[in-house]
Amino acid sequence: MNILIMGASGTIGQAVIDRMGSDHDMIRAGRQGQDIQVDMTSPESIESMFERLDRIDAVVVAAGGAAFKPLSELTPADNDTAINSKLKGQVNTVLIGQHHLSDGGSFTLTTGVMVDDPIACGASASMANGGVETFVRSASFELGRGLRLNSVNPCVLDESWSKYGKFFPGFETVPAARVGMAYQKSIEGCQTGQIFYVR
Amino acid sequence: MNILIMGASGTIGQAVIDRMGSDHDMIRAGRQGQDIQVDMTSPESIESMFERLDRIDAVVVAAGGAAFKPLSELTPADNDTAINSKLKGQVNTVLIGQHHLSDGGSFTLTTGVMVDDPIACGASASMANGGVETFVRSASFELGRGLRLNSVNPCVLDESWSKYGKFFPGFETVPAARVGMAYQKSIEGCQTGQIFYVR
Repeated sequence: MNILIMGASGTIGQAVIDRMGSDHDMIRAGRQGQDIQVDMTSPESIESMFERLDRIDAVVVAAGGAAFKPLSELTPADNDTAINSKLKGQVNTVLIGQHHLSDGGSFTLTTGVMVDDPIACGASASMANGGVETFVRSASFELGRGLRLNSVNPCVLDESWSKYGKFFPGFETVPAARVGMAYQKSIEGCQTGQIFYVR
Repeated sequence: MNILIMGASGTIGQAVIDRMGSDHDMIRAGRQGQDIQVDMTSPESIESMFERLDRIDAVVVAAGGAAFKPLSELTPADNDTAINSKLKGQVNTVLIGQHHLSDGGSFTLTTGVMVDDPIACGASASMANGGVETFVRSASFELGRGLRLNSVNPCVLDESWSKYGKFFPGFETVPAARVGMAYQKSIEGCQTGQIFYVR
């Protein structure tokens, strides 16, 4: 398969490449310095990316930011970070990509543990991830040509603990290698409309 | 209590007024022709509304649109309707309103059955409502001064069936009067972070 991975330079992106790269052709996408450039906050940039690519059989989105701030300090402008990247970036990749993927292809999006297990300073990220998961469950029923749509919802990664651990007191971590397996299940398996939890 | 109701002219807004109006002072907000004007897609308009109001003890948001289209025809621009009104409009009302409400006040937002029970043409509305519910669950833990935050998730209303019924084959309807009771529970009760289902 030709697998497009948006957010290839991140920890999860690398885990997907490590898991899948020996059996498939991986096309790395990112804001800069990858096989192909894309700004996921821009529908025009996503459309341009797909138009420049040859056959794509699977898309992984492992990108998107959010403001982590106490709710009392979170402004509408802060909240737009998660809206524009995590939420609209992922949803628009599906809305646009549905017209470009090979028959039977798959989209695998990325959410995270705070959808179901809230953390302080995480309301904006939770909101965006919750929107993504609800979109996955609903849109998967309407995709044509055998296209599938899932999301992977990992807990905090072992590899990210030094950076994000302070936001997740008492949360267990998971190794990125296990998270990579969930993407493999989504890409090579038969399921659609699923949230694959890695806990 | 002084209860601000955004979307006062809608079926749900009227049901809330019918249920609560005899015991509380209702301040009707809408795009035009109500006690106070607000454009929920504009953070500046929401801020201006709160600045023009005196004491507000509870806010109900029963407003927000979405494009209902087959997924194959749904564009990023179509999806922005739900993003800007249903999702950002409701979330921004909380982000801004938290600095204006009376101590112990409440926000009650509005979602709908398609969060958990997807319908054709409903992916965009589902996405927005899912984001709202996840925000409610997460943000409620961080609100200060005893503020509370809930959402009401009704099935299709009896009163809306002629307009929306074709999108909801086999769905049971509920009378608006029962939906109004759920808002009363949120406003006069003690719970926070809850989704009150009316089925």
